[in-house]
This record gives sequence, structure tokens and C-alpha cells, in this order.
Amino acid sequence: MSAGAGDETLAGYRSGIDDIDASLVALLGERFKITKQVGIYKARVGLPAADPEREAAQIVRLREVAASVGLDPAFSEKLLRLVFAEVRREHELARSDDNADG
Amino acid sequence: MSAGAGDETLAGYRSGIDDIDASLVALLGERFKITKQVGIYKARVGLPAADPEREAAQIVRLREVAASVGLDPAFSEKLLRLVFAEVRREHELARSDDNADG
Repeated sequence: MSAGAGDETLAGYRSGIDDIDASLVALLGERFKITKQVGIYKARVGLPAADPEREAAQIVRLREVAASVGLDPAFSEKLLRLVFAEVRREHELARSDDNADG
Repeated sequence: MSAGAGDETLAGYRSGIDDIDASLVALLGERFKITKQVGIYKARVGLPAADPEREAAQIVRLREVAASVGLDPAFSEKLLRLVFAEVRREHELARSDDNADG
């Protein structure tokens, strides 16, 4: 049993958190739909899967957005790096599928 | 210079990604506003900062949401664990502030 089970105040907070988490995952799903397209496109036109300069610019920008909403910029950077690693994995998969197709 | 700079197709994709990232960070900001309240509340009523059973249930639920939107559930779990670690850090800060105040 959860330590806070039966606590209505906590249940209210948790319901808000659960709604946000579902929205976060849905948004990430949208994001990966786009990055899958990017992976296919990059493989087709011969652009490298990773773009370190673009990633550096994204990190700088999102650290600023994070600070503006009261998040620790270091935390936002860690999250974004995890997303980048997943995108890179997908781009490389797209590339090997592309090679497999000739 | 970014490898894809000047490529309009890529620029279109990237603009969509940037919008989603700004929304993700804004939502995370909202999430941490709630978890800060939870941290203060838990410290006040003497509940432990971490709740492993609640976390386990959240992970199971969000792995399902992730799969339903085409995300790798393992990736979603990694992200969520990073968020939990940050929440725990904040809860423990709230607790030590509370102790400092008597």
C-alpha cells in the first residue's frame, strides 16, 4: 500500500501529476513521430544522423526555458540529453533499414 | 554551422520539434509546482519523501501510455526515473528547510 493512500489532499495532487504525465508522454509521442520523419529524411538525403551544433543550441535554449518556469536547468539538460540519445538510436535504425533496402 | 542549415524541409521539422520541447518544459514546470507542494505537504504531515509503491504504479501506467503512442516503454521509464530522482531531491530539500525552520 502506498504511504499516502487514503490521504485526499495527496490524492488531489497526484491526480494533477498523473494528468500532466499523460500529456508529457503524448507530447513525446508527437515529438518522436517528427524525429522519425527526420531520421528517414536525413538517411535519404545523406545528412549525418547526429547534429551536435543543433543539439548544443537546443540545450542552451531549453535551459533558458527551464529557468523561466522554475526548473533546474541542469535537470532539463539531463532530460534533453536522454531524448537526444533515443532520437540518435532511432536515426541509426532508420539508416540501417535504409541500407538494408539498398 | 549545423549540418542541416539552409535545408527548408529540415527547418520545418525542427520548428515543430522546438514547439513541442517548449511545451514539454512548460508542462514539467507545472509538474514541479505540484510536486513542490507535495514535498511541503509531506514534510508537514510526516509522510516519507519517497513512495516506492506509488512510483512503481506510475512507471507501469506510463509504460502503457508510452506504448500506445509508439514510444519505447524502456525509454519512457528512464525519463520518468530521472523525473522521480529530481522530485526526491526537491522533497528532501523541502524537508531540510522544514527542519531548519524548526
